[in-house]
Amino acid sequence: MDKRLKSQLAFALEIDKEKSILRQTHLSGHGRRENDAEHAWHMAIMSYLLREYANEEVDIAHVMLMCLIHDVVEIDAGDTYAYDAEGLKTQAAREEAAKQRIFGLLPDDQAAELMALFDEFEAYETPESKFAHAMDNLQPLMLNDANGGEDWALHGVTAKQVYGRQSKSALGSQQLFDEVIDPIIKTQIEAGNIQP
Amino acid sequence: MDKRLKSQLAFALEIDKEKSILRQTHLSGHGRRENDAEHAWHMAIMSYLLREYANEEVDIAHVMLMCLIHDVVEIDAGDTYAYDAEGLKTQAAREEAAKQRIFGLLPDDQAAELMALFDEFEAYETPESKFAHAMDNLQPLMLNDANGGEDWALHGVTAKQVYGRQSKSALGSQQLFDEVIDPIIKTQIEAGNIQP
Repeated sequence: MDKRLKSQLAFALEIDKEKSILRQTHLSGHGRRENDAEHAWHMAIMSYLLREYANEEVDIAHVMLMCLIHDVVEIDAGDTYAYDAEGLKTQAAREEAAKQRIFGLLPDDQAAELMALFDEFEAYETPESKFAHAMDNLQPLMLNDANGGEDWALHGVTAKQVYGRQSKSALGSQQLFDEVIDPIIKTQIEAGNIQP
Repeated sequence: MDKRLKSQLAFALEIDKEKSILRQTHLSGHGRRENDAEHAWHMAIMSYLLREYANEEVDIAHVMLMCLIHDVVEIDAGDTYAYDAEGLKTQAAREEAAKQRIFGLLPDDQAAELMALFDEFEAYETPESKFAHAMDNLQPLMLNDANGGEDWALHGVTAKQVYGRQSKSALGSQQLFDEVIDPIIKTQIEAGNIQP
């Protein structure tokens, strides 16, 4: 087998480990904790179906691929909970090292391409990155809301924290923020699951 | 919230259930059984990275979306093991009913689009469908091989059965069949994990 194909298959096998990286979000129906691969799959489909609500026109194939690979680094760096202040301080350095090792398994051209895609996601600047982030935020919010807000209640999350994260969703889709995200947050504050 | 957006979110929440549909394949590292959402995520990324080996030029966004949604019907119809002869007889009817119910949650235009995409996958005729099927076959073969062929051994699968399924992978990618799939099958027959 030639070296290029061997590298591609080594990467394909390595990312299998993403299925064992657990997030804080629980599956709907008060299920078990979700893993990163499931989250990425869900986000990618949502991005396709909800693309009409993006603030700016997006290259949807680019968004979908970004959704699919954005958490690969967590195989080494672990999942950092959105409201874990200590973990967030070291997240960037941990993820940079992971990015080099894991995408570095690929042939050089594909390694460079996926590293650039990951960097683009993190930089929050392009329309595609902003919309992918909106999906990254909306998907767990939807599951948490379906479970009566239990993940927020469990972690004692405050309205300030949730708005701090979710207000950035409006950069990707003002309409989804106004019509879906903001009403859910308000309802969950009222229900006492998000601290005022 | 308008009716269209409400329908889209109802579908997005419904497909969360795909994360609970277990396959016969085990995760690498002799892990637990894989679920459909994880499998779809893995296939979609592999299709992107291995697209250069497709027999015919493919619209890769189309292939990726096909990979992501091809198992949604199993939420109702369950996973049918590739070598379950009895289950395979009723699979098409069970999946047709599931297709109507689940994709039917979406607004009409998107329901029709995803039903057509599912039908295209099943029909095995377009270059995109053939390549997506090659990924659908290669992904579990890769995991099973990484686990020393334990899934084949557990089910007493024969070479005829494996070739029956995997020979169709060559319709999507002759090169991947010749350089990856066929050598793995031969090795696993020799090791006694696939019955001759």
